[in-house]
Amino acid sequence: MNQLFVVGIGPGDYESMSIRAERILKNCQVIIGYTVYVELIQKFFPEAEFLTTPMRKEKERCELAFSQAEAGKMTALICSGDAGVYGMAGLVLSMAEMHPQTKITIVPGITAASSGAAVLGAPLMHDFAVISLSDLLTPWETIEARLRAAAEGDFVICLYNPASKKRADYLERACRILLNYKPEDTVCGLARNVGREGESCQVLSLGELLNTPADMFTTVFIGSSQTKAVAANGEIRMETPRGYEKKRKTPETP
Amino acid sequence: MNQLFVVGIGPGDYESMSIRAERILKNCQVIIGYTVYVELIQKFFPEAEFLTTPMRKEKERCELAFSQAEAGKMTALICSGDAGVYGMAGLVLSMAEMHPQTKITIVPGITAASSGAAVLGAPLMHDFAVISLSDLLTPWETIEARLRAAAEGDFVICLYNPASKKRADYLERACRILLNYKPEDTVCGLARNVGREGESCQVLSLGELLNTPADMFTTVFIGSSQTKAVAANGEIRMETPRGYEKKRKTPETP
Repeated sequence: MNQLFVVGIGPGDYESMSIRAERILKNCQVIIGYTVYVELIQKFFPEAEFLTTPMRKEKERCELAFSQAEAGKMTALICSGDAGVYGMAGLVLSMAEMHPQTKITIVPGITAASSGAAVLGAPLMHDFAVISLSDLLTPWETIEARLRAAAEGDFVICLYNPASKKRADYLERACRILLNYKPEDTVCGLARNVGREGESCQVLSLGELLNTPADMFTTVFIGSSQTKAVAANGEIRMETPRGYEKKRKTPETP
Repeated sequence: MNQLFVVGIGPGDYESMSIRAERILKNCQVIIGYTVYVELIQKFFPEAEFLTTPMRKEKERCELAFSQAEAGKMTALICSGDAGVYGMAGLVLSMAEMHPQTKITIVPGITAASSGAAVLGAPLMHDFAVISLSDLLTPWETIEARLRAAAEGDFVICLYNPASKKRADYLERACRILLNYKPEDTVCGLARNVGREGESCQVLSLGELLNTPADMFTTVFIGSSQTKAVAANGEIRMETPRGYEKKRKTPETP
């Protein structure tokens, strides 16, 4: 049977890939992906043939992957982060019925919520919501409704695709909505270029986040009411307590 | 400077660990964790000294880790999944100020939302909320409020800790709440023992999920209004479309 693997490669540095993803990519004859991600890993798999399609050609990329697999080549379609979180796993699965001769295997990776959180400290220690601010495929009204619902539920909120050249003010718009529910001093964080050149992070307030630029390589974290700024190794980091401290308080005796 | 690594080992199978996690654990002299996770990886790191503490002794586990690091041993504290998602990263960071001589590094892993989603298909292709049903450290009212908010926002919902021996009916209670917002035929999924012996998954309706047992090694996925059941490789899988199909519809011409 033909084999198509949909592989999440993690944030971008080779070492963040899972051992399984590495083994599968080493065995694949063809590796397909968006140009930027192919460039990140190409040198590590010198024996594979690499094929790229530009951004927004997702369906064509999947069709290319199926056609390579159906030519009998062991094929991987790579995604940054996790193939199953805003990645290509869904589109590939939606085409599975048309390609019954191809076995599809989804190989998860470390998504930007996890890799960004690790750089910023521990913002996701309690319940959280992941929202993409890209309105290319989702109406802005839906995004806004989800921001409101996540704020009402006091989730930590992790924003993917907070801005792009065409959507320069989307993060500001999101912050204005959240400021209806959350105080200005809510602890927030930005993780930029995680696992890539220029990796950096910043802990700041929601009021400050409102006026802070972001791009498509930034992941944004907006704290819950419990999230704190803590000092660690001489840096300021985010921490959302899970509640161990509370548990250990001795109950008051009458 | 003393070194303490807080390492997410992923769902449980060795290959789901990141290459970085493997390299760090190979270099550590002491590896500390909850007994079950230590047993999963102990044989792969024969040169390390392993120390365990039982469940619910999280603070003691962190103190043990700091004390080992401060004895000059390169030390890792391991967590299943991602160290930063309901893991130990937060508690360690909250103790950082008391241990200024120890450099803390958080090493992310593949969390159960990602590893469970990959087994079930592609349920997390669009915005999602992660909620733990454990009320050991969180009041049930908070959990219930988050379930309601996530349903109102039409998020895909991923439930961690859906049940335990003492909380056998919590998943049922959660389903009853969600049924106030979502139809009975909402597409849901269960992923059990991912990356471990007895791995299995099941796609079912919210009405069926209500009466389905789960345990602490189960991750539950409740679809949004858009989530579909799709056939792939002769199995039924979950898919939450990201909207590529919609985008490609030709606009109606007058």
